[in-house]
Amino acid sequence: MRMEELIGILAGIFTTIAAVPQIYRAWKTKKIEDVSPKMFLILTIGVLLWTVYGIMKKDVPIILTNGISTLLNSTMLFLILKFRKK
Amino acid sequence: MRMEELIGILAGIFTTIAAVPQIYRAWKTKKIEDVSPKMFLILTIGVLLWTVYGIMKKDVPIILTNGISTLLNSTMLFLILKFRKK
Repeated sequence: MRMEELIGILAGIFTTIAAVPQIYRAWKTKKIEDVSPKMFLILTIGVLLWTVYGIMKKDVPIILTNGISTLLNSTMLFLILKFRKK
Repeated sequence: MRMEELIGILAGIFTTIAAVPQIYRAWKTKKIEDVSPKMFLILTIGVLLWTVYGIMKKDVPIILTNGISTLLNSTMLFLILKFRKK
């Protein structure tokens, strides 16, 4: 494997799984007061647009990484709405 | 401009600026208890790797969007360390 490919794959894994520890923390503590809902809204729209872009370009790695990111970030957005103080 | 290009540019803008409202919130409230430091550590490493990938491939849009993301996410990581309760 070429060095570029390896770095690209590592980069893709890191940016895709980044939301997991945040989801875990929110789920465990049920506290999301300091988390910005706007960040996760913008991020979800962004990775959803990347997924659409990947579908239009028929680019499997773009679809896969951003599809997973869309699921993870929208899950976090759901938790923010769920645990929000009324 | 082609539809794909427009969606790609919008996707890039959204995912790049997503951290801004989170930085603003942390800066204003000085509270980061519910924010996952692991998320921002993994994200910073990820976008830094994407920037390196962009440099190796001489791809200006990848360098630009991920370079800005590296700055923004490392700023948030710095704020998390700064406002952390001892």
